[in-house]
Amino acid sequence: MDISEDTFIVNLGIHVRQIREKKGLSQQDLADDCGITQNQVGRIERAEINTTVKTLVRIANALDVEPKELLDFPLK
Amino acid sequence: MDISEDTFIVNLGIHVRQIREKKGLSQQDLADDCGITQNQVGRIERAEINTTVKTLVRIANALDVEPKELLDFPLK
Repeated sequence: MDISEDTFIVNLGIHVRQIREKKGLSQQDLADDCGITQNQVGRIERAEINTTVKTLVRIANALDVEPKELLDFPLK
Repeated sequence: MDISEDTFIVNLGIHVRQIREKKGLSQQDLADDCGITQNQVGRIERAEINTTVKTLVRIANALDVEPKELLDFPLK
């Protein structure tokens, strides 16, 4: 069954937020580590933007996980 | 160790091409299934563009894999 793009980025945002909070990082901490703005982190977590693969890699590096782990969540 | 964004998208392109060829699809077939152009498929496979998460989801749907599988390759 095809996955909805919109649903996927909503779940991605929730998953990024969960990993960030588990690591004890604020949105500002993550933003600083990625070289993006705190506003952009918030918009990714709220699925307001369709981010790129390179930004995913920066987020993964900052969260100390592999990029594929950012996409590893139950598909609803 | 941090992953290079550029190296990552090169490996992603190679991985997408491998899955596409394994499924016996041409670039044009994949493009048609994703609603993108054949040129865009070629540019993703050659890492000439930094694609978005939504496009990854469309490619995953067309290749009948989960999005996380597109990012699942050895990191060199």
